[in-house]
Amino acid sequence: MSILIRNILAVLPDAEKKYVVKKADVRIEDDKISEIVLCEGSSCGVEVTNSGVDAYGEAKNCGTDADEIIDGTDRLLIPGMVNAHTHSYMAFMRNVADDLAFTDWLFGTISPIEDAMTDEDAYWGANLAILEMMKSGTTCFNDMQMNIHQTTRAVKESGMRAVISRGLVGNGNDEAGAMRLRQAYEERDAAKDCDRLSFFLGPHAPYTCDEAFMRIVAEEAKKNDMGIHIHLSESATEIENCFKQYGCTPIALADRAGLFENPTIAAHCVYATPEDMQIMKEKNVSVVTNPASNMKLGNGFAPVAKMMESGVNVCLGTDGAASNNALNMFSELRLLSLIHKGTAKTAQCVSAKEGFEMATISGARALRMEDAIGSIEVGKKADLAILNLKTPSMQPNNNLVAALAYSANGSEVETVIIDGKITMKNREILTMDEERIYFEIGRMMKKMGLEGKEY
Amino acid sequence: MSILIRNILAVLPDAEKKYVVKKADVRIEDDKISEIVLCEGSSCGVEVTNSGVDAYGEAKNCGTDADEIIDGTDRLLIPGMVNAHTHSYMAFMRNVADDLAFTDWLFGTISPIEDAMTDEDAYWGANLAILEMMKSGTTCFNDMQMNIHQTTRAVKESGMRAVISRGLVGNGNDEAGAMRLRQAYEERDAAKDCDRLSFFLGPHAPYTCDEAFMRIVAEEAKKNDMGIHIHLSESATEIENCFKQYGCTPIALADRAGLFENPTIAAHCVYATPEDMQIMKEKNVSVVTNPASNMKLGNGFAPVAKMMESGVNVCLGTDGAASNNALNMFSELRLLSLIHKGTAKTAQCVSAKEGFEMATISGARALRMEDAIGSIEVGKKADLAILNLKTPSMQPNNNLVAALAYSANGSEVETVIIDGKITMKNREILTMDEERIYFEIGRMMKKMGLEGKEY
Repeated sequence: MSILIRNILAVLPDAEKKYVVKKADVRIEDDKISEIVLCEGSSCGVEVTNSGVDAYGEAKNCGTDADEIIDGTDRLLIPGMVNAHTHSYMAFMRNVADDLAFTDWLFGTISPIEDAMTDEDAYWGANLAILEMMKSGTTCFNDMQMNIHQTTRAVKESGMRAVISRGLVGNGNDEAGAMRLRQAYEERDAAKDCDRLSFFLGPHAPYTCDEAFMRIVAEEAKKNDMGIHIHLSESATEIENCFKQYGCTPIALADRAGLFENPTIAAHCVYATPEDMQIMKEKNVSVVTNPASNMKLGNGFAPVAKMMESGVNVCLGTDGAASNNALNMFSELRLLSLIHKGTAKTAQCVSAKEGFEMATISGARALRMEDAIGSIEVGKKADLAILNLKTPSMQPNNNLVAALAYSANGSEVETVIIDGKITMKNREILTMDEERIYFEIGRMMKKMGLEGKEY
Repeated sequence: MSILIRNILAVLPDAEKKYVVKKADVRIEDDKISEIVLCEGSSCGVEVTNSGVDAYGEAKNCGTDADEIIDGTDRLLIPGMVNAHTHSYMAFMRNVADDLAFTDWLFGTISPIEDAMTDEDAYWGANLAILEMMKSGTTCFNDMQMNIHQTTRAVKESGMRAVISRGLVGNGNDEAGAMRLRQAYEERDAAKDCDRLSFFLGPHAPYTCDEAFMRIVAEEAKKNDMGIHIHLSESATEIENCFKQYGCTPIALADRAGLFENPTIAAHCVYATPEDMQIMKEKNVSVVTNPASNMKLGNGFAPVAKMMESGVNVCLGTDGAASNNALNMFSELRLLSLIHKGTAKTAQCVSAKEGFEMATISGARALRMEDAIGSIEVGKKADLAILNLKTPSMQPNNNLVAALAYSANGSEVETVIIDGKITMKNREILTMDEERIYFEIGRMMKKMGLEGKEY
């Protein structure tokens, strides 16, 4: 299967890996980008022809033929967004509990619903999440949860790419913790046939895993060459309790337990100290910032600018829909690029390009896929989104990376390609039954007594 | 002309003016909402019939006939958003200057472009702004700028509703200031035939109008029964300079100059003190908060929660596209409902319902149109937006005001009615030529040497 995207403005990395927007022809062969050929001139709206050179001036030719040809006129090609932290099945809990204190939120509303949730509910929840992400240009997500089989099922069917972590909770060498680890491996082994799926181990957090259990998980990850996905330093309460129990920060504890000897992606780090940042830099830990969730639950603002300065790889996530409430990486990128200017009181903090990097290649790096996804380069997987530039938010057509960060809302995404396959075309999802998903979500709400509920 | 919207979930005010979501039939006769009749049951997805009672239990009947019938199945009816502070023509400057310090932003980029701007440029800029607002459910905006004739022209043609202020700059009784006042009156008089247009006087800010000129404007407003639209306490520099020159805060200065003896809408107030809030409460001054702009220019976060506590009427605006960069009130509402939870470190600060109120009825109140727009009530103008609930961001269909604040992005808006006329239907704009607007914006960019420019 080959796809040729002709005459499209594309957000490409230049030799210094900074973004440039150039008009190009892009060829996809099977699952990979096989050629990128620049067109004459790079201004939008100008009729151009294949110039026969790639971004580095080398002679190339994309040809004019392919199984599928996409006209790139008035369109923008970007690498698909990488949502580096979410809990996909929670999409059906989008509006069930808002404007509540954390304990009322979790124990009063979220937990009882999770208790009532069946396998099928988890499956349709994951489907709704994937639908929302795909429709807003996300092509890969990093997930943590309990019922991972239903998510891998939805990922396989939908054509999405994902990294899945079975949420692990445990105390020392207990049977419950061991059972959860077994589930993680079983699912990994069962999904070996799907190239779009990979697996991390997911010790949930220092307040749900004790140090001994974290140590076991660290060793398991090492033995199995798996990455670690964990929540760290999300709330002030977590820090306080961690100091009481262990005499150190959650980040220092995770390091002490050996988790960081494995490639680690740490969600939140709202309360990371300079010492924590030093540890994370040295151990190559990636941080996923989740601005909406951190604000919505009243945890505050992560020290993103300071973490970037410390050399930590910072990437971007939405968290679950129960605490965001959107899984739209464009909304999240807008928040990321705005809020730190507010807290630092300077317009020169987290630029549009830095934000876009966190939403794409930095997430790929955190998920051990830097060489495969996260940017538009020959040899990488064809994980791409095509935006319509004839929309108010993308007009005028200049400084388009700024438009991606500050004015786009995700609905500009028209076509999505994952692993070389078109999964959405002109906003029609080709790999999932959108109507069916809404029907099943409605059915679940009725069953749970939440249908049409208002607070 | 009559419109009947049948069987639609509607965000209605209850007897205490709190929001409830109920299924209803809504009839529009000419420019007004003439009847609202509740349907049996209020859950979505349930087949219901006109119950013959309105929200207060009174017998009613919407009938079944109208010039235009809109099926409300799987749709949500909301009052159109009121964008309470913007500079519409700046839409064409959306991405020209981002991530820059304020002086580089204003004097290095924005001002030179404004200097090169013709009447036609201002007209197409206003058109792009109105297009963006209409497509994201805004039905009224409050504008301040220099070339108001081009904006009133675009407002008249597009069917939008607006309050227009000629930006006034002046020192004492100078001729330039007097000329600007004359232009304000001329435009007001010339637009008398358009019911959708009203006019405020717009003394720009205490750093561009001296106290004597503000005094003149205050008297002119009183004489002409006009409201005041002003920027106040936006940046730390403004406060510092105001204290140096006048020995008081900008808000205290505006009060001292008599401006607040007129209905006043004050943009920003990021640095409002408790004393300022007291003055504004006593003088019934409304504050427009513009979260994106305040963050993007590095000014910080307005004390919205404190102003609300003080009893000040707080409403919501996008500011101009040069400092936001979107004119999408859904994006702005999301920011408003999230950031103050972040700064206050509590989930219980600016709830979804409070945010939605600021985006609608509070803006109407600030613009002296509380009795005419801002909520769905019999006798009010039919300024309405209809959202598609079969979109991931609105699923599941419960707690829909939370969905409006936290997960909607504006693209869910399908149909817009302003002054009883359908201006957008199934996302097609009926009153403007969308393609032409993009063409003209492209032409302007080329002329200004900004076409396809990247930084």
